[in-house]
Amino acid sequence: MANKTSRQETGGAAANAFEARVRAVAAGLLERKLDALLVAFSPNLRYLSGFTGSNGNLLITERGATLFTDPRYTIQAQEETTARVKIVKGPAVKAAAAEIRRAGVKRIGYEPARMTCDALEAVKKDLPMRAAMTPVSGWIEELRMVKSEEEAGAIRRSVETNSRAFEYTVARVKAGIAERDLAAELEYRMRKFGASKPAFETIVAAGARSALPHAQPTGAKIAGGFVVVDMGAVQDGYCSDMTRMLYAGVADAKAKRMYKAVLEAQLAAIDAVRPGVTAGRVDAAARGVLKGYGLDKTFIHSTGHGLGLEIHEPPRLGKKDKTKLKAGMAITIEPGAYVEGVGGVRIEDTVLVTSTGCEVLTGVRKELVVV
Amino acid sequence: MANKTSRQETGGAAANAFEARVRAVAAGLLERKLDALLVAFSPNLRYLSGFTGSNGNLLITERGATLFTDPRYTIQAQEETTARVKIVKGPAVKAAAAEIRRAGVKRIGYEPARMTCDALEAVKKDLPMRAAMTPVSGWIEELRMVKSEEEAGAIRRSVETNSRAFEYTVARVKAGIAERDLAAELEYRMRKFGASKPAFETIVAAGARSALPHAQPTGAKIAGGFVVVDMGAVQDGYCSDMTRMLYAGVADAKAKRMYKAVLEAQLAAIDAVRPGVTAGRVDAAARGVLKGYGLDKTFIHSTGHGLGLEIHEPPRLGKKDKTKLKAGMAITIEPGAYVEGVGGVRIEDTVLVTSTGCEVLTGVRKELVVV
Repeated sequence: MANKTSRQETGGAAANAFEARVRAVAAGLLERKLDALLVAFSPNLRYLSGFTGSNGNLLITERGATLFTDPRYTIQAQEETTARVKIVKGPAVKAAAAEIRRAGVKRIGYEPARMTCDALEAVKKDLPMRAAMTPVSGWIEELRMVKSEEEAGAIRRSVETNSRAFEYTVARVKAGIAERDLAAELEYRMRKFGASKPAFETIVAAGARSALPHAQPTGAKIAGGFVVVDMGAVQDGYCSDMTRMLYAGVADAKAKRMYKAVLEAQLAAIDAVRPGVTAGRVDAAARGVLKGYGLDKTFIHSTGHGLGLEIHEPPRLGKKDKTKLKAGMAITIEPGAYVEGVGGVRIEDTVLVTSTGCEVLTGVRKELVVV
Repeated sequence: MANKTSRQETGGAAANAFEARVRAVAAGLLERKLDALLVAFSPNLRYLSGFTGSNGNLLITERGATLFTDPRYTIQAQEETTARVKIVKGPAVKAAAAEIRRAGVKRIGYEPARMTCDALEAVKKDLPMRAAMTPVSGWIEELRMVKSEEEAGAIRRSVETNSRAFEYTVARVKAGIAERDLAAELEYRMRKFGASKPAFETIVAAGARSALPHAQPTGAKIAGGFVVVDMGAVQDGYCSDMTRMLYAGVADAKAKRMYKAVLEAQLAAIDAVRPGVTAGRVDAAARGVLKGYGLDKTFIHSTGHGLGLEIHEPPRLGKKDKTKLKAGMAITIEPGAYVEGVGGVRIEDTVLVTSTGCEVLTGVRKELVVV
């Protein structure tokens, strides 16, 4: 019963997408001098198999994909994946090693940035004679960088939910609310509008705390000055990411200038986004504007990052980053300026690279919201 | 300003606790034939330094602890940790390797279950002559297993918030609500009552879906049969975990018997908890009761797990697990029975091992709640 219902929900199209991805990886093994690829990292595993459980290993050979997971996921694995499923007790990685022996594959790729030293040792210990583990970096992440139409659709829905949650909540918020209560309202509304969860801990940082790019919301009340609201939703597995600024009270000329500088930097960066341009070039566009305002030294992080199944994915839009943007990439554009003891400003959209430039998916207006 | 305020909030007691933990690790280096320990795993890093940022490496030598993190966390690191702070651009692990060279330490422990293959390689590449990386498994996790009074206090607050959120919400819930809406209400209430976030994605699984131990809530309405509600809060960094069962409609004799079996199993397991008893013995107590009902084969996971800064920590209360319980351990007791196509039952409390037995922290009553 559960099985049938869920397959209908997931849809045959999704199942086909997983199978196509597995075929693409299987077809790429030979040129990488591999007989198999072992995938343990959850977002990569999900991308290739559809399986969303917290514990699994996927082994891809020329003959397709096999998923190893534990008995908690017996039914769920059947529902979610088109891969062969083997339910095992004990570590999934040991079962994968046993399958490697059985299948007689010799050259097994693994993901060194995603696998712990212990997991690698566990596989190595059980390897047959003359078999070897070979590090393969960023292969699946590279596939994931360019989103399919279905994936872009999920990101679009996630962005819309996130935007609605912000607009609904902020229209009802007043100065005096505690940072963490505002964060709670935003996350609640996100879920009510269709998100499965927040993509990260919602940041609400008021006054001098807005100068902390990754502040956790506290019990402090929103009383005066800038308020950074950085929020993202997960919907159908895909992330969105947005930052907007509120201002409690009346912004003085200095605050307005800082906001204007970051907004101009953000628009300049968006303007630079198109296929073929390097990520570093987009970063430089934002940094250049801030330099004109004497604020470049206060911009202490990169201009953006890819997002999808994870909130932070390649490419990174950092200084001198050489990755060339491609149509179908989903990225954030989020320059900021942070002055300790005073406050910070960040403005962020989720953006889809198109064949001619980009589409800003985030539709929320960028005027400074006074509360 | 921000610095001072936050130090006052954190309190000198907390800072002292971090310093004492670092001293304990520094003092334990010699017997492990180490000159230093490198910690990159976020919960271990937080336990030893107080730092809650998402990117950091901590190097502990005889002379104390040094935290490496990036410019996003300049202010936050100053606020949170008593360790020396070095703000670095680029990978924190490379900066740690540079410090290893500068300090002239030769034998550096690392956490192989917590470190990626790539991170280890990055350190190794920059190591000075005659220096070597040595795997050290479970050291910090073992320290973390037994909670201090302050930690137990945080877990207690987290459990209370979680329990209040359940009771408040369930008193207002009616059959017909969608799984994911109930999950959203529970998480919202959790935050309103003081949690910083849910400890994991709240599970609300109704009808036949209750047979999936780790189900994600869907748009399906709660219409008939068992409803598993498995939820946890994070408060002051510490987790709680609880499962309670609702029933939509009138439970028949078979459902009542299944519920009774799991409840008896849970009480028997709680009864078995005391210092000196093995985790496996507690698991066996639950399994034995279910066997009497012919339901032991439907109990497809372990009886519980430690919790604290992470939702899943050692010890594991699984079959034949030999870890001896100690006063101060915080664990869950959560047997279940799952019948595909019919439904599942799980009942779970957060429990603190005391010198004489245990204290069940979760105060929510265990009668089957009819909605």
